[in-house]
Amino acid sequence: MHRISIKTRSDVDFQDITPQVQELVASSGVESGVCYILVPHTTAAVTVNEHADPSVVEDIIAHLEVMVPRHKNYRHGEGNSPAHIKASLMGNSEVILIDGGRLFLGTWQGIFFCEFDGPRNRNLLVKIIADKP
Amino acid sequence: MHRISIKTRSDVDFQDITPQVQELVASSGVESGVCYILVPHTTAAVTVNEHADPSVVEDIIAHLEVMVPRHKNYRHGEGNSPAHIKASLMGNSEVILIDGGRLFLGTWQGIFFCEFDGPRNRNLLVKIIADKP
Amino acid sequence: MHRISIKTRSDVDFQDITPQVQELVASSGVESGVCYILVPHTTAAVTVNEHADPSVVEDIIAHLEVMVPRHKNYRHGEGNSPAHIKASLMGNSEVILIDGGRLFLGTWQGIFFCEFDGPRNRNLLVKIIADKP
Repeated sequence: MHRISIKTRSDVDFQDITPQVQELVASSGVESGVCYILVPHTTAAVTVNEHADPSVVEDIIAHLEVMVPRHKNYRHGEGNSPAHIKASLMGNSEVILIDGGRLFLGTWQGIFFCEFDGPRNRNLLVKIIADKP
Repeated sequence: MHRISIKTRSDVDFQDITPQVQELVASSGVESGVCYILVPHTTAAVTVNEHADPSVVEDIIAHLEVMVPRHKNYRHGEGNSPAHIKASLMGNSEVILIDGGRLFLGTWQGIFFCEFDGPRNRNLLVKIIADKP
Repeated sequence: MHRISIKTRSDVDFQDITPQVQELVASSGVESGVCYILVPHTTAAVTVNEHADPSVVEDIIAHLEVMVPRHKNYRHGEGNSPAHIKASLMGNSEVILIDGGRLFLGTWQGIFFCEFDGPRNRNLLVKIIADKP
């Protein structure tokens, strides 16, 4: 189990973590297997989407804000209920296949750590399992 | 593959199932591995979110109700389309890492079975896989 | 790692791919294990929901359209931001258990490839892992 440290820069912040995960896969020496990515937080998430044009992620962020508005009556006293709701909508884990010693992703796909209640210091857990241990 | 029986208490009902899953992991004797949690229903789901303050889950439930309103024209004759839609938004599976013989969860994280069309008797499937079989 | 080719027929199109995945599991000879389903695209997804009554999926499609409207100001120049947002809401992977040589699904569950920016030729990746390699 590997741990990646992430320093988020603002309230809501998606960071492309593909290179860091790719590096862990490369240094594991696993040729074929499965890579699990886990977020151990309840106001952050992980998603796979386009990382070629940064405006895609800006649109996802902006529309999540519309779907889960900030100024509303929520019960949770800390005031960060929208962040919890967005986290469950995006999900806190991803599974990615490893093939030829690399993450098998589509042409446009990147892995994003999704901060919804930052800025904070966050962790991401990565587990790499080879097909034939 | 293990099966956990769940009796939901109302129409929409999130139940913290962390202790039951933790117990299965403990009795499996697996020190390091992966735990899969699967919901074999189409109007229920599973999510990981804060279980310290119950108002977080109340806010998630209430806001899903806003996002997927009940009184609207849906085509599906049974009248439970909102439950199906919410189930796909939350997802019917979770993957959790096992470390040191326990589920590896963040400080605030708990696993919730999400009923969207209850009350009913439901099942949850749990599969535990050790790193080294 | 197996690849399934999918030809989507319209802009938004959910296709029941349960039989194709079931066939791959059967021909793998794996009795007990895990099946991963991965979508290598950023405007398509995969979800598990009811496949007995097709109106359920029609309701999911129609309501996603309401939640993520098409005619709105998005920044991404290609005009398919709603498809990217829906893809992250549904998720690009599923994990399904294999038991008795078959996918272990609930009575009403089917696996759907979700096209959000079609019609196109798409791929789906399937990986089958036996409990005891």
